[in-house]
Amino acid sequence: MNELRHLLQEIRNQKPLVHHITNQVTMNFLANGILASGGSPMMAHHYEEAEEAVMAADALVLNIGTIDPSLVKAMVIAGKKAKQLGVPVILDPVGAGLSRLRKDAVQELVEQVSPDVISGNAAEIAFLMKGEWGGKGVDGDLSGNHEELALHAAAKFGSVIAITGERDAVSDGKERITITGGHEILSYVTGTGCFSTSLIGLFLAKSLETSLSACQRAAGALSMLGICAERAQAVSAGPGSFQTALLDELFRLKPEDLKTAGRWSLGGIQGGK
Amino acid sequence: MNELRHLLQEIRNQKPLVHHITNQVTMNFLANGILASGGSPMMAHHYEEAEEAVMAADALVLNIGTIDPSLVKAMVIAGKKAKQLGVPVILDPVGAGLSRLRKDAVQELVEQVSPDVISGNAAEIAFLMKGEWGGKGVDGDLSGNHEELALHAAAKFGSVIAITGERDAVSDGKERITITGGHEILSYVTGTGCFSTSLIGLFLAKSLETSLSACQRAAGALSMLGICAERAQAVSAGPGSFQTALLDELFRLKPEDLKTAGRWSLGGIQGGK
Amino acid sequence: MNELRHLLQEIRNQKPLVHHITNQVTMNFLANGILASGGSPMMAHHYEEAEEAVMAADALVLNIGTIDPSLVKAMVIAGKKAKQLGVPVILDPVGAGLSRLRKDAVQELVEQVSPDVISGNAAEIAFLMKGEWGGKGVDGDLSGNHEELALHAAAKFGSVIAITGERDAVSDGKERITITGGHEILSYVTGTGCFSTSLIGLFLAKSLETSLSACQRAAGALSMLGICAERAQAVSAGPGSFQTALLDELFRLKPEDLKTAGRWSLGGIQGGK
Repeated sequence: MNELRHLLQEIRNQKPLVHHITNQVTMNFLANGILASGGSPMMAHHYEEAEEAVMAADALVLNIGTIDPSLVKAMVIAGKKAKQLGVPVILDPVGAGLSRLRKDAVQELVEQVSPDVISGNAAEIAFLMKGEWGGKGVDGDLSGNHEELALHAAAKFGSVIAITGERDAVSDGKERITITGGHEILSYVTGTGCFSTSLIGLFLAKSLETSLSACQRAAGALSMLGICAERAQAVSAGPGSFQTALLDELFRLKPEDLKTAGRWSLGGIQGGK
Repeated sequence: MNELRHLLQEIRNQKPLVHHITNQVTMNFLANGILASGGSPMMAHHYEEAEEAVMAADALVLNIGTIDPSLVKAMVIAGKKAKQLGVPVILDPVGAGLSRLRKDAVQELVEQVSPDVISGNAAEIAFLMKGEWGGKGVDGDLSGNHEELALHAAAKFGSVIAITGERDAVSDGKERITITGGHEILSYVTGTGCFSTSLIGLFLAKSLETSLSACQRAAGALSMLGICAERAQAVSAGPGSFQTALLDELFRLKPEDLKTAGRWSLGGIQGGK
Repeated sequence: MNELRHLLQEIRNQKPLVHHITNQVTMNFLANGILASGGSPMMAHHYEEAEEAVMAADALVLNIGTIDPSLVKAMVIAGKKAKQLGVPVILDPVGAGLSRLRKDAVQELVEQVSPDVISGNAAEIAFLMKGEWGGKGVDGDLSGNHEELALHAAAKFGSVIAITGERDAVSDGKERITITGGHEILSYVTGTGCFSTSLIGLFLAKSLETSLSACQRAAGALSMLGICAERAQAVSAGPGSFQTALLDELFRLKPEDLKTAGRWSLGGIQGGK
């Protein structure tokens, strides 16, 4: 997919600014991951500067991992400004089902901001679908239906949905892409899920010119992470050295290494579900 | 000690959820350390979701490293809920003697929550004992008396006391365990003290079945950290690579490697003070 | 420069306490960097304990990377107390030009605290000079004039100014030092700029005895970082392993390795601008 390689080259040339209002646990890793991948990270979380920060940004990532009411306020202000300016907004509804605070935050962000992409694990996306996703349990029979879940959630929310897990699924309600690859060790490093979302932000940066759809750009980001994770795992002795090697591999990946052959399965085209 | 090996195996099987209300400096390291050791970390610090978060947790770790009044409020709510639910509470009184804010926070937590374990360095535990620990200086003649200090503090607070340092001491007011091992390089990596406390939380997780006492479980956690630190040091060139290797070794440690022979000295049994 | 080697030896002997009120993104790295270099880091950011924390400190680092009004309040209280006590204050005006919030914070800190050192990149220092730095663009013709900018800013603010970049420039308005070295990979790791500022704080610690000027001490810190960065780069495969190796090299650097020959160019003496 030459167009995807071109996109990564553009990223490396332009260093798009990916602004984050995100959680305290993983923000250092996200900043280092975006730098290593070729972008410029920014973190600023107070609502008084929310609009000004977005005005400098090429993408806006909202992550509710350590949310509080003041952060929700900043996210709504930043998100609305981003939509006005055509800056793509990517939402990671971390632990959406944990509390009323998170549930309300996600609902407010979805309604007020209408994110371009919502990216999370299957449990989080299924939680957002509650009511319309029937009696199917979150950890139960959903496991085999990430593609189905992404498709339905995309239709419901009018956003691209990216579901990360052993196998990633991306859909915009019509197009469907399944991405294989990566490695189980990713689940032993905190922030790799958050970083998927940040990397999608980088691939969707406003300043990049490409003929790819938002769905394909998000899938490109997940492919890059999967390839780099496999390479990092090959030289690691555990999750500590894996995290270090992952940053090295993100930095070292050449556009021509961004192969999707054998990794992408396209819904309706190559017989995806 | 076969029962301790069984406990680590149970941790690996169950992946207990260790909830943290903790400081901003080391939370990423704590999350990665708990993941590497076999648990599931959670961080959520706003008081509005404090009760709900505890309801999902197997242990609750409270660390006052970057405390503020809003966090104290969240800790008290979470701690009380944990006690109601039988979820063990582990308190790390980081820098307790630095300020009135910290002193008051610790006092409120001790009185309102009554933690199952209080884990800190000798200066912090001695500060808590002030008045009853007489004229002995914090950095002075205490150095040789960690076991004594742990014993007295445990009796006073009705909690297990874990004192970490060159040599660790754990007591519940009757039982006394001294743990040797570890490496000085631990003092050149921020968060290794905080991580001792988190790992104690993992070993005390409510969901685990064991015949070990809380005192022994805490000592087991400190033994695991000591063994892994020695292994990590052997393959490190300095504190950066040590931190990376420590996460690798926590992940790689097999239950059968968790040997306490030659590391534990038991008060009253093997002639401990 | 034997006096600089002596200073590093003093740091290793005394482990000065460098207190930070700093941003959430890089605080873990700063703490590990100060530990590796031989100091003792402290982070405490609530205004209620701001004075007490400074009373324990040998230097105070203020970094506005993730500023909010409550942090500004803490910084002003801490800064004023530090000046009273003769504890040096080092300000990093991260992203000063991004927002009104940051601009006002920097102005308040400069006016109320009068920092001993202001340390940032050329864009940040130039922003502070606005009005008096004429029509010269921030990213434009400033690039060749870091020494000039440092000199003028130092005269305007009455502080030592340290400008970090491909080439570092330090001035107190009279003395001028240019430091070469380091490596481009530093720009792919978040927090290396913030760490420059923290390391300057360590080198300026109140408790250290030296005949060096503040300007020379700041330049010594930047030299140490440059030397360690070069050594780390030589054993790294990318920004992940570089960050790890940098901490190792900071720890391993011996005072006698702190050579400035061929690195320092002194204004007016060796023909600096």
